[in-house]
Amino acid sequence: MWQYIPPLQSIRFVIEEVLQAPAQWAGIPAFADLDADMAAQVVGEAGRFAAEVLQPTNGPGDLEGCRLEQGEVRVPAGYRGAYQAFVDGGWPALACDPEVGGQGLPQLLNAVLFEMLVSANHGWSMYPGLLHGAYETLKSHGSPELRERYLPKIVSGEWLAAMALTEPAAGSDLGLLRTRAEPQADGSLKVSGSKIFISGGEHDLTDNIVHLVLCRLPDAPAGSKGLSLALVPKVLPDGGRNAVVCDGLEKKMGIKGSATCQMRYEGATGWLIGEPHRGLAAMFLMMNAARLHVGLQGLGHLEMATQNAVRYAHERRQLRAPTRPDGVAAEGPDLIVHHPAMRRTLLRLQALTEGLRVVAYRAAQLIDEAEHHPDADRRREAQALAALLTPVVKAFCTQQGFDGASAALQVWGGYGYTHDCGIEQVVRDARIALIYEGTNEIQAIDLVQRKLLPDGGRAFERLLVQMAEVAEEAPPALRPWAEALTAQLQQARDGVAALRAAAVEDPEAPLRVADDVLAGIGHLMLAWAWCASARALLRLAVPEDDARWAPLRHAAQWLMADAAPFWQRVRQCRQPLGWVASD
Amino acid sequence: MWQYIPPLQSIRFVIEEVLQAPAQWAGIPAFADLDADMAAQVVGEAGRFAAEVLQPTNGPGDLEGCRLEQGEVRVPAGYRGAYQAFVDGGWPALACDPEVGGQGLPQLLNAVLFEMLVSANHGWSMYPGLLHGAYETLKSHGSPELRERYLPKIVSGEWLAAMALTEPAAGSDLGLLRTRAEPQADGSLKVSGSKIFISGGEHDLTDNIVHLVLCRLPDAPAGSKGLSLALVPKVLPDGGRNAVVCDGLEKKMGIKGSATCQMRYEGATGWLIGEPHRGLAAMFLMMNAARLHVGLQGLGHLEMATQNAVRYAHERRQLRAPTRPDGVAAEGPDLIVHHPAMRRTLLRLQALTEGLRVVAYRAAQLIDEAEHHPDADRRREAQALAALLTPVVKAFCTQQGFDGASAALQVWGGYGYTHDCGIEQVVRDARIALIYEGTNEIQAIDLVQRKLLPDGGRAFERLLVQMAEVAEEAPPALRPWAEALTAQLQQARDGVAALRAAAVEDPEAPLRVADDVLAGIGHLMLAWAWCASARALLRLAVPEDDARWAPLRHAAQWLMADAAPFWQRVRQCRQPLGWVASD
Repeated sequence: MWQYIPPLQSIRFVIEEVLQAPAQWAGIPAFADLDADMAAQVVGEAGRFAAEVLQPTNGPGDLEGCRLEQGEVRVPAGYRGAYQAFVDGGWPALACDPEVGGQGLPQLLNAVLFEMLVSANHGWSMYPGLLHGAYETLKSHGSPELRERYLPKIVSGEWLAAMALTEPAAGSDLGLLRTRAEPQADGSLKVSGSKIFISGGEHDLTDNIVHLVLCRLPDAPAGSKGLSLALVPKVLPDGGRNAVVCDGLEKKMGIKGSATCQMRYEGATGWLIGEPHRGLAAMFLMMNAARLHVGLQGLGHLEMATQNAVRYAHERRQLRAPTRPDGVAAEGPDLIVHHPAMRRTLLRLQALTEGLRVVAYRAAQLIDEAEHHPDADRRREAQALAALLTPVVKAFCTQQGFDGASAALQVWGGYGYTHDCGIEQVVRDARIALIYEGTNEIQAIDLVQRKLLPDGGRAFERLLVQMAEVAEEAPPALRPWAEALTAQLQQARDGVAALRAAAVEDPEAPLRVADDVLAGIGHLMLAWAWCASARALLRLAVPEDDARWAPLRHAAQWLMADAAPFWQRVRQCRQPLGWVASD
Repeated sequence: MWQYIPPLQSIRFVIEEVLQAPAQWAGIPAFADLDADMAAQVVGEAGRFAAEVLQPTNGPGDLEGCRLEQGEVRVPAGYRGAYQAFVDGGWPALACDPEVGGQGLPQLLNAVLFEMLVSANHGWSMYPGLLHGAYETLKSHGSPELRERYLPKIVSGEWLAAMALTEPAAGSDLGLLRTRAEPQADGSLKVSGSKIFISGGEHDLTDNIVHLVLCRLPDAPAGSKGLSLALVPKVLPDGGRNAVVCDGLEKKMGIKGSATCQMRYEGATGWLIGEPHRGLAAMFLMMNAARLHVGLQGLGHLEMATQNAVRYAHERRQLRAPTRPDGVAAEGPDLIVHHPAMRRTLLRLQALTEGLRVVAYRAAQLIDEAEHHPDADRRREAQALAALLTPVVKAFCTQQGFDGASAALQVWGGYGYTHDCGIEQVVRDARIALIYEGTNEIQAIDLVQRKLLPDGGRAFERLLVQMAEVAEEAPPALRPWAEALTAQLQQARDGVAALRAAAVEDPEAPLRVADDVLAGIGHLMLAWAWCASARALLRLAVPEDDARWAPLRHAAQWLMADAAPFWQRVRQCRQPLGWVASD
């Protein structure tokens, strides 16, 4: 039966043993009161909410979708109750500053929370998904008045937030935005323009919705350097309705419970956040966290797909398997989990899930260090590493999440293609994560152009050195993982060196292979994660026949070849790339 | 704008120049009257039907779906009209024997027809998709009475057919089927049982539906060797309604216009087709053609996704590209088709589409040779090659079709995720083809266990020799393609030799890497197709700046690395594969 069982053992293992986060917390004053047990308690509670309250609303919400009735959006049945329970549980405030009513817990735990929310119900998780970003933006750039009026209600979740960036002609290219903001005598703005793809732009979960709208002031320079950010509430401070209109809902492939709104601002009242023309800078502050959260969606889907496929494969019997585990009798058709084709699919999915959890949580851990470490150098270094990892986590985890969900679907055969089974919804829901918050192609360009090539590639070298330490310290029992990691480190170093050399003469070269570089580094991070996980199991003296070894062994034996084509293309980056003819 | 433009130039190029089918037809008496012009005329007409009549019903049919009302299924609006036009055009009879009212054209042209139907409307194409298989089965195994009563109406398309195999507990494992058939005194059968996933089991397109039902006679041996095939019509010869009941429709991820029925046979009247207990043999006769047709679905989706993505990329402007083609001015945002990330996506999709068209059509050409060549040795050899290629075409083309549709979706960004755009439906529709007609995992097992390893691998060696000839005959200008092909031939030969050696001691070894073998041979077939296509372009003296060279050059420069991980895993087939623990 389709269900969500929170992967508490794996999550604790990654946090406590692989990433050794409790030791990090002890060195950061903001987290000094936090220990492994308290963190485990938070994770356990989050899992209970996700599994018991949220997951049951997922399948029905997909069928019901959202409705637009006289300008008001109705979310699917059960969404309101789940959201109220989420607010009552204090979850919106998890990683917010205690000074404004938050719980002050690390981003790492917020990452765990969102992985679980997405596993349980991606569509629903879109509504609170923007809260933390709005909080960060407002906290860092809002005027004292705006902060006082809006921050506490955002932290508590009493009001939800929406990010209004995209317009019909401006998707990846925000410089083409045309929404205008006219300053008024009282210091407010009149905001006018049309936006599309606004998640949660209108809904009935909260009484008010705080829109953060990217727009242009009258004297703005052209392009992306002329964008300003305005706070435009659905309901004005005097209780009146602002001129914020939802014109339509997109009919989408998935996340049907999430209202994707076409919005019109008709001279709506708003207030500037941050400096004029510096709207992008104000929004980019929250970009690392937001993109990490999209990467976590890939992980959440992979976890959900994998655990359900493993359970189904232990229930369904078809055909005789060539061999079966010791002690299993050969009677009638075998459980499909004993068939080699299913074992390789499931072990691969488990290895990817476990590995990507380490990778994604590592990025969250770096964000915590970048924000809270007492040492400024450590903060800077962590910030550089987090910035480097963020596009990899966003793009690589979401691609693996979608591909993995589709691979898992295959385990159910024909049943997998039907809605009742559950997995086909995961495939549809997972697909959006490759697109929004910057398409995966934009992530690859960001990685290569802004993170790898500038500054002599110091952050990348630092990353390679940190990974190499894991390989070098590995005892002989870990040779399969350490050797694979070392080989991939060399491929990565050679590949990026070739890229750097080529880029000097041929500025297009890095862009020709940007997606390959990202995929190559994604596989490298997996190789590191598997090696680090194996080291942690060994340190804990986990017996060889413990189930946790199987995916790691599978990774070392069968999955390390996957990186080769990507690095081969990177090394060939001087080769020309053709033009595409029109019909 | 989303539309279907039949790829007539490419189709004619593959048929006439790459596969040189007209020369083959000249040597086969059954096709002696057919020439390239006549074939082109048929293809052109088929394209017109697909583009003008069928494609407009695709998007609306996806939203509307099928309805079950008091046991009767209503197909989406427009489907009936399109089907009537299809019958009026004589398309069901295209590749049927003239003796029973068919047009006697090659399977190759039927393959072209079905590629186009699927591009235009996969859901609709499911209804006539089973006609040819039912025709083959009935023609070869039906009694004279059954043939006389049903064959002409199936050939004309006046009545449609349904294949009733799967039951809730019996999917890949047909040996578990429980539907029973009781012989009656008048020579008929009473058929009783429940079937699921029956495409077109009930609908309102035709007055009668001819069910071919896999069932068990009372004295049947257990397992798949005890299955018989019964013809069970919806409407009996006396005009009365047979006890054939549709209990429900599946709510599916895609192909929503295709009625996927839960069927109940309640002592329904039927007649045996072929020998008792030999039902599987009767059905397997049509398996090569049916599986080829599923492979063609992957090709059809890839074509549709690619051509629309290329058009959209020539309309949409976002961001500045680093370079642009000669003569294109650098003003404002560039067409996204000039951005490297889009060029690599689109050229890759074009290369895959062109290459897989050659591969799939080659399989159809071999089936024609196997059925109609005057020389018995040639028929046998073609039959062995077709049997070898069939699982590769089925699984590899469908995987590429799904992955390619998803890759194309990315070109639209957020728009791609919405129904109005068209591409998300292609992704959803394409996903089923990896499952039905034998899952892709079952295809890989069939390839390795029944086609590669038995008989000393003679068919595979013959295939390698034929491909090697293409590489050896290539002039110097074709070195990039010929060298890549030669290298992959060596990888394939080494890989399969390692597999053969391992299988002697370790029967599980081939099953551990069956999917890798299939993917490796799929890539090898692509390398051959690209080399053969380049040779044809060179022979035609197509200028270097002609658009047809660009995807082929892209393939040689950027895509040949993809095969390596698969063969690496095949060479490592002696490595153990772990067991998957339950939760």
